[in-house]
Amino acid sequence: MPREKYEALLSALGEFNNDRYNSDFLLSWRYGQDTIRSVLLATEALRTLWAEGLSTRVFDTGMAISIFRDQSTRTRYSFRAACNLLGLATEELNEETSQIKHGETVRETAAMLSFCTDVIGIRDDMFIGRGNKYMNEVSSSVQESFDEQILRRRPALINLQCDLDHPTQSISDLSHLSDYFGGVDALRGKKLAMTWAYSPSYGKPLSVPQGITALMPRFGMDVVLAHPPGYELMDEPLQAAQRFAKESGGSFKIADSMEEAFEGADVVYPKSWAPISIMNRRTELLDAGDHAALASLEGEALAENAKHRSWHCDEELMAKTKGGKALYMHCLPADVSGVSCEHGEVSEAVFDRYRLNTYKEASYKPFVIAAMILLTRFEEPAEVLRACMERKTHRSL
Amino acid sequence: MPREKYEALLSALGEFNNDRYNSDFLLSWRYGQDTIRSVLLATEALRTLWAEGLSTRVFDTGMAISIFRDQSTRTRYSFRAACNLLGLATEELNEETSQIKHGETVRETAAMLSFCTDVIGIRDDMFIGRGNKYMNEVSSSVQESFDEQILRRRPALINLQCDLDHPTQSISDLSHLSDYFGGVDALRGKKLAMTWAYSPSYGKPLSVPQGITALMPRFGMDVVLAHPPGYELMDEPLQAAQRFAKESGGSFKIADSMEEAFEGADVVYPKSWAPISIMNRRTELLDAGDHAALASLEGEALAENAKHRSWHCDEELMAKTKGGKALYMHCLPADVSGVSCEHGEVSEAVFDRYRLNTYKEASYKPFVIAAMILLTRFEEPAEVLRACMERKTHRSL
Amino acid sequence: MPREKYEALLSALGEFNNDRYNSDFLLSWRYGQDTIRSVLLATEALRTLWAEGLSTRVFDTGMAISIFRDQSTRTRYSFRAACNLLGLATEELNEETSQIKHGETVRETAAMLSFCTDVIGIRDDMFIGRGNKYMNEVSSSVQESFDEQILRRRPALINLQCDLDHPTQSISDLSHLSDYFGGVDALRGKKLAMTWAYSPSYGKPLSVPQGITALMPRFGMDVVLAHPPGYELMDEPLQAAQRFAKESGGSFKIADSMEEAFEGADVVYPKSWAPISIMNRRTELLDAGDHAALASLEGEALAENAKHRSWHCDEELMAKTKGGKALYMHCLPADVSGVSCEHGEVSEAVFDRYRLNTYKEASYKPFVIAAMILLTRFEEPAEVLRACMERKTHRSL
Repeated sequence: MPREKYEALLSALGEFNNDRYNSDFLLSWRYGQDTIRSVLLATEALRTLWAEGLSTRVFDTGMAISIFRDQSTRTRYSFRAACNLLGLATEELNEETSQIKHGETVRETAAMLSFCTDVIGIRDDMFIGRGNKYMNEVSSSVQESFDEQILRRRPALINLQCDLDHPTQSISDLSHLSDYFGGVDALRGKKLAMTWAYSPSYGKPLSVPQGITALMPRFGMDVVLAHPPGYELMDEPLQAAQRFAKESGGSFKIADSMEEAFEGADVVYPKSWAPISIMNRRTELLDAGDHAALASLEGEALAENAKHRSWHCDEELMAKTKGGKALYMHCLPADVSGVSCEHGEVSEAVFDRYRLNTYKEASYKPFVIAAMILLTRFEEPAEVLRACMERKTHRSL
Repeated sequence: MPREKYEALLSALGEFNNDRYNSDFLLSWRYGQDTIRSVLLATEALRTLWAEGLSTRVFDTGMAISIFRDQSTRTRYSFRAACNLLGLATEELNEETSQIKHGETVRETAAMLSFCTDVIGIRDDMFIGRGNKYMNEVSSSVQESFDEQILRRRPALINLQCDLDHPTQSISDLSHLSDYFGGVDALRGKKLAMTWAYSPSYGKPLSVPQGITALMPRFGMDVVLAHPPGYELMDEPLQAAQRFAKESGGSFKIADSMEEAFEGADVVYPKSWAPISIMNRRTELLDAGDHAALASLEGEALAENAKHRSWHCDEELMAKTKGGKALYMHCLPADVSGVSCEHGEVSEAVFDRYRLNTYKEASYKPFVIAAMILLTRFEEPAEVLRACMERKTHRSL
Repeated sequence: MPREKYEALLSALGEFNNDRYNSDFLLSWRYGQDTIRSVLLATEALRTLWAEGLSTRVFDTGMAISIFRDQSTRTRYSFRAACNLLGLATEELNEETSQIKHGETVRETAAMLSFCTDVIGIRDDMFIGRGNKYMNEVSSSVQESFDEQILRRRPALINLQCDLDHPTQSISDLSHLSDYFGGVDALRGKKLAMTWAYSPSYGKPLSVPQGITALMPRFGMDVVLAHPPGYELMDEPLQAAQRFAKESGGSFKIADSMEEAFEGADVVYPKSWAPISIMNRRTELLDAGDHAALASLEGEALAENAKHRSWHCDEELMAKTKGGKALYMHCLPADVSGVSCEHGEVSEAVFDRYRLNTYKEASYKPFVIAAMILLTRFEEPAEVLRACMERKTHRSL
């Protein structure tokens, strides 16, 4: 990338108001367009430095804490890689060998883990009504300790997936779309089908479809959401989608079938998620410690899913998309029929054709997370990125 | 902090003899006053650099190993943060996925983990007669490998809590007291009540009260220890407390009740610990693998504790302290009545009033551990800290 | 080490063709003599820098991933220490909290963990026919993502022990021999006895004896392999040993007893391993999930081992070696009779006499792994090592 292009990118970034400084990155739809655009630009700048072999280290020392309340390979790696790009060491809080819990203890533990901490990354996506609430508890706790001058710096929280949103995923997806179509402005008028798809598994979070549905209409895309009855998403992200579509000149509507959603689509995102009614009962049963009922709920959920096995992304459906060549997206791992399970979200033929595209899609995540951290830690991220280019420190000897 | 104050601090540090160089930090009462004062001064210097946003990185590369034989959130974090402040990467030895054991194998494993290691932090506080012994085994093992020129450098052991002492806690507490009262010399003549308090839990180590009791009389404090019969502390720290009190002009005595200890106190430290007779039997039963007897011992211990439920720090007791405004201290987590348990060590009202003070108290630990490491790794820590100020490298871009 | 000696070492290194650049280090016998000699020289250069307190950091930021499919203390530490020497942060992939599996998923996960990764270290040594195969799957997967420009850099795989070879061990052992006898050329004509020894344990990999047997004849050593019937090693490393012996003027033969192998030996390496027939059945039973048969296989294996309890390295056997003073080697931990088990591989007297030698032997491993990484990451490792000397950055302030 020629030097002028990098400079143009930083100039654009410098124009935006950085309201994430000394704050968190929790729910994309609560933040202004400046914030989202800033993450996109900082991501692109970091990827440019990386491609040129230049160091993006902006911390001489520093700590990032991660808390994973669900299994994770991809996001765990991406978070660590992001921190490493910036020079932060990471420490994972293992709740089994410690004692972090809700309420009073969250407040205390959050303070205890923040004395020398720049970033706290949290994944807590398993139970409706919990993950975002927990992040807010941690956030207000570190804010209190900062206000009371117990902490010299206020660590930034990064949402690595909660019950409501998965912003590091959705903004990675947006970066991928932007690169694929030749810039974020080229997304205007492109049709994206965010649809449910069958999977023989239970309890998949709603946060990915919610994050995608709320984010893409901001860029003038025509988003169509489709799912079987009972698989509705939550109100807040849908209302955000509606509002953003109006503001941007894009559109947002809900369809009843994959066929309708795929019709003429430029992009398709078929993915399974759980019915919210089941997720809500699951939270209640867990609170009650009713393991027998939990087991029978799982059976019930799988039986409900199985009624919609026809929600399957295959070549026949793909043929309905624009020119038959829509971009297939997935946050991975996908349930590929005949490969990872008998019947899944997508046929082997379709998945194989787009397999490397999904890898590319995933490759943005470390840089998106690093960009979010940059915004929360530096008042003027453009200045910091300019310094990284000018000092010409190479990543390796 | 003006430059002159920092320089004065380093001058004072430079005056002290650093006998911890190329050695360990295991039991505070075995070391001279120079050593304790050096840790305090180095802690203050590191906190100053941190507050000014200057890097305290003194290692370009380097490894620290931690071995935790008990659950830990706070100390684990503090150790990692301390290492990060200095530029050391940390690796936790997980004994479940390795094979470190006592005796012959300790010697071997200690050598195997020391080839490129600067620091080994160990917590081994569960069994009387074990933790300090284990640390000494590791220490003599690394000394042997160093003497035999297998190791180019001798890694330093840092006691992150053993059965006898918890020096990173007690010196953090001392730093907190020093800041609270306006300097370590202002502690002279201040009364500190280190008292037992009821907790519905079993097997809490004696090392915190022992560490506090042995440390504070060195600074001219009037330390009063109080506990129910059967909850006596070990001889070595008590004799040290006696000796130090005599040397410093402070005092040390044992009282029979919280009331007596709290009377006119400037500082109170009510905290639960286990009866040593039960701890000793526990070690024996564990060695014998007698799990049935261990279970009944727990019941016995809890019943014994329950006889002393009146040992509870509430507002009525606090009113007896100097002006009713003694500083409440706790190493956390505290058992707060009606919050973390029905009946505990401290009432919610008292704890809430001092909650943020206990966070502040905890905030010294990463810097105290880093100061200890600095003393063991550098012959002249004052020179190193001077260089950190003079080079003016910022912690972040 | 005087500057000229270091320079001579780098000159020699500069002469060799570096065919590991942008590739992996998997099986030592598949690589040319240049490669092995380069690892030796780079190891020596890194140890020199370390001894002089100079920094070997060649990465400003960077990630290494480790995947351990078997318990490990020594190699895990050595890998982390090696990465730290070079400036790479390490992240261990915990397969229990993630979902990496064979086949399709390996390809995907390997890509997902490689976006910002320089090195992937894998130990997978438990099952015959699996470890090396798995490493090749990961290798071809990262190669595909690199070819498709999803990855900007191709991470290098380092074999931290597979079912076939344990090259970081064997080359550490070679470094130790080279130092012990005064240079790699001094190994010519030295007799090394690689022999089986009894151990009351089951399923020890064949990779250490295979690695030693295939490597040492390349340097003109006279290698004698001895084991009871049924404990044969695999064809590929034995054929390599034969070929290398012919090329170097050394020799390789198989003897029927420890006595014969030890006769006049300069070096002895008595170590237990499992019969390949049992290892093969073990893999089959594991695939079939036949846990009952697996348990009875273990009994059978132990009974088979027990027939050969006389394969024990004691003073009587040591007396047969050259001047009664052969160097005893072991990759550790050894089964020492009367110490770690009743009857083991070696008597306490012999082991104790060589205990510190085995520590020294182990001490090369971090540097050997770092040397391998250097070769895979830098086209001209000699230039990089020269720069490390010339910049004179100290490892600590």
